[in-house]
Amino acid sequence: MDRYLVISSDGHVGLPPERYRTYLESQYHAAFDEAIEREIRMREEHEKRFLIDDFNTKWRARVGDGLEGAWDGTIRNRVLDQDGVAAEVLFPDGITERNAPPFGADIGLKPFGTRPELQWAGARAHNRWLAEFCIEDPARRIGLAVIPALYDLDETLKEIRWAHEHGLKGVFFPSITDGYDMYNHTKYYPVWDLLQQTKMPLHFHSGGAPAYDTTQPGWIGTYLCEFAFWMTRPLWSMTFGGVFEEYPQLKVLFTEAGGEFWFPWVMQLMDIRASAKHTSGKLGDYNANMTMKPSDYFARNVWVGCSALPDEETTESYYQIGIDRILWGTDYPHPEGTWPSTLEKMVLSLGGLPEADIQKMLGGNALDVYDVDHDALAEIAARIGPAKSHFYKQAAE
Amino acid sequence: MDRYLVISSDGHVGLPPERYRTYLESQYHAAFDEAIEREIRMREEHEKRFLIDDFNTKWRARVGDGLEGAWDGTIRNRVLDQDGVAAEVLFPDGITERNAPPFGADIGLKPFGTRPELQWAGARAHNRWLAEFCIEDPARRIGLAVIPALYDLDETLKEIRWAHEHGLKGVFFPSITDGYDMYNHTKYYPVWDLLQQTKMPLHFHSGGAPAYDTTQPGWIGTYLCEFAFWMTRPLWSMTFGGVFEEYPQLKVLFTEAGGEFWFPWVMQLMDIRASAKHTSGKLGDYNANMTMKPSDYFARNVWVGCSALPDEETTESYYQIGIDRILWGTDYPHPEGTWPSTLEKMVLSLGGLPEADIQKMLGGNALDVYDVDHDALAEIAARIGPAKSHFYKQAAE
Repeated sequence: MDRYLVISSDGHVGLPPERYRTYLESQYHAAFDEAIEREIRMREEHEKRFLIDDFNTKWRARVGDGLEGAWDGTIRNRVLDQDGVAAEVLFPDGITERNAPPFGADIGLKPFGTRPELQWAGARAHNRWLAEFCIEDPARRIGLAVIPALYDLDETLKEIRWAHEHGLKGVFFPSITDGYDMYNHTKYYPVWDLLQQTKMPLHFHSGGAPAYDTTQPGWIGTYLCEFAFWMTRPLWSMTFGGVFEEYPQLKVLFTEAGGEFWFPWVMQLMDIRASAKHTSGKLGDYNANMTMKPSDYFARNVWVGCSALPDEETTESYYQIGIDRILWGTDYPHPEGTWPSTLEKMVLSLGGLPEADIQKMLGGNALDVYDVDHDALAEIAARIGPAKSHFYKQAAE
Repeated sequence: MDRYLVISSDGHVGLPPERYRTYLESQYHAAFDEAIEREIRMREEHEKRFLIDDFNTKWRARVGDGLEGAWDGTIRNRVLDQDGVAAEVLFPDGITERNAPPFGADIGLKPFGTRPELQWAGARAHNRWLAEFCIEDPARRIGLAVIPALYDLDETLKEIRWAHEHGLKGVFFPSITDGYDMYNHTKYYPVWDLLQQTKMPLHFHSGGAPAYDTTQPGWIGTYLCEFAFWMTRPLWSMTFGGVFEEYPQLKVLFTEAGGEFWFPWVMQLMDIRASAKHTSGKLGDYNANMTMKPSDYFARNVWVGCSALPDEETTESYYQIGIDRILWGTDYPHPEGTWPSTLEKMVLSLGGLPEADIQKMLGGNALDVYDVDHDALAEIAARIGPAKSHFYKQAAE
């Protein structure tokens, strides 16, 4: 084949806020009607401070109705065809059009500032809409169920089973666990067991963070220095907790750390902290749950969703992490992603690398991670995938 | 001089718990009497889980009455003489003998699990004892006032003034700010101003952390992957908040990150996050408070207290951080420190490096940071400092 199969590891979908009502169980309609205007207003306020208004206005003008691909399948497929993307992993939240699930069941999925029962209701509403959206084009849409897993294990197990039976291909969990049990707690074992059995990969995505005081100087820089940490806490708590030792087929993905330099550091940090030294004698045998080095579990159980930044250091870090761990992504329809200049940025990131490596990062590794239809994807890629020649022209010039 | 001047950046002192009563204002005696047995019991419990009992018993047997140097000046000076250390920066908490200030005014200095008024009372009790302890031998004892700065700015300013007038040479602040304002908040400006005026360096020390569930597997590994992060949050919040821009003479130290690989990462992380890219366009001008790169402020305002780990990677990282930023330390009397084999470990860490670099790290940089008596220290070093020849014999072999 003269084209690459591209499976984006980082796509975002969600209805315009008011349209989630239809998918919400009727006992939550009153709460929804009461909350919806406040939620929209909060997002508008947030946008004023964080996602600068002016930037968004220009962004909308530039990309036209492409933002509506967050919920409109026809527009989405048109964008994917233009972008050369055969399929996508679908997280919640279109951001610019504020199309996130209600009641805090969004990409932050925080366990504070919301009520567990309502967050669950919002998650189920999103999952039910998403299942419909994915069934429209099951080969191209790898939907992730939003699972607020911290509150109620029975509900968690039930929703994972529902998602699996309804064609969703993985789950998205909160990375912020404040006030609840971290993922090294043994109570989560039945969850890991079910994910392993159903071959549903577990995803964490940047976005969740504690509340910052947005009236103070430096809060954004502080957030930028910390967001990858907040996302990655489940990695070391699960690793040192022995989760990957107990569940060797469990698959975990960490998506959009904002530059992949983060993961080589984290792998090294875990290995250093796991190596017994004079300094840790007072700590006892805290590695008893592991038979391998943390980075060895990483190489077996963990993948990194790379929302591609076209710079050399990022590409170099792909090799430090391991080429078979990297799942490239566009982050469509977020403004920090590659769309609508995906091919150009793809070539900037990956152009000139060995063909086999590019194939793995763009789509081959995703085929290993997800339970998807290889033949159907190959057909789509043959039609719209980026020509391999693009990646070598530049290197030859 | 044929000997090095050694100023340890990391020493710990504290009374046996029951002896803090004398230094506590009388209105807190009833609370102290009610709390003291519970606090001692909690430390014993903690020791059973974290600072393994068996390890501590062996440690006590090995080092004899040396642990009593945590509060006994005669023993402390004897240990320092044997260790070749002329002077020390003094943080609270002897650990093994549980000699920490009461009411949570300890090295964790956490803003939860204690009452602000009581934590302040415990801190003042420690500071009053410490001022007495330092006045016994002012050249050798660089005492740090414990300041629970999050609750009450007037009390903070008052206590810094008291500490400065009573011979203490710097302050130790909580690094965990959960539930209170982070250090980018402009309300702290008068504090930075006073510290700059009085030339009192500000210290953060590892130890503070959120509560982990100590019944679950992997919690120690999780803590080990996170403790340096918890300590370092003030660095980027102050940097991006513009504190070093506003207070160019403010001096901040971060002590005992457990392997100095951490700081080159953090400097790089801050610089990457500060560099405007396509991805951050939606964030607006979040660098408006800085006229330099974060790592440039680091090179001017920040020092690292290195509780020496004798391995090559750590020594290499000293050069990445900058030799003039490094303050070597023994961590006496903590078991993870170099005592009682300080000279041997010093030589393992630094042996063979250029003499001028060794001098900076062992003591020269500390002379820049602290308001100390250079002549008195030179005299002590000439008597007990480690012979420079030790550091080159090994390299020549």
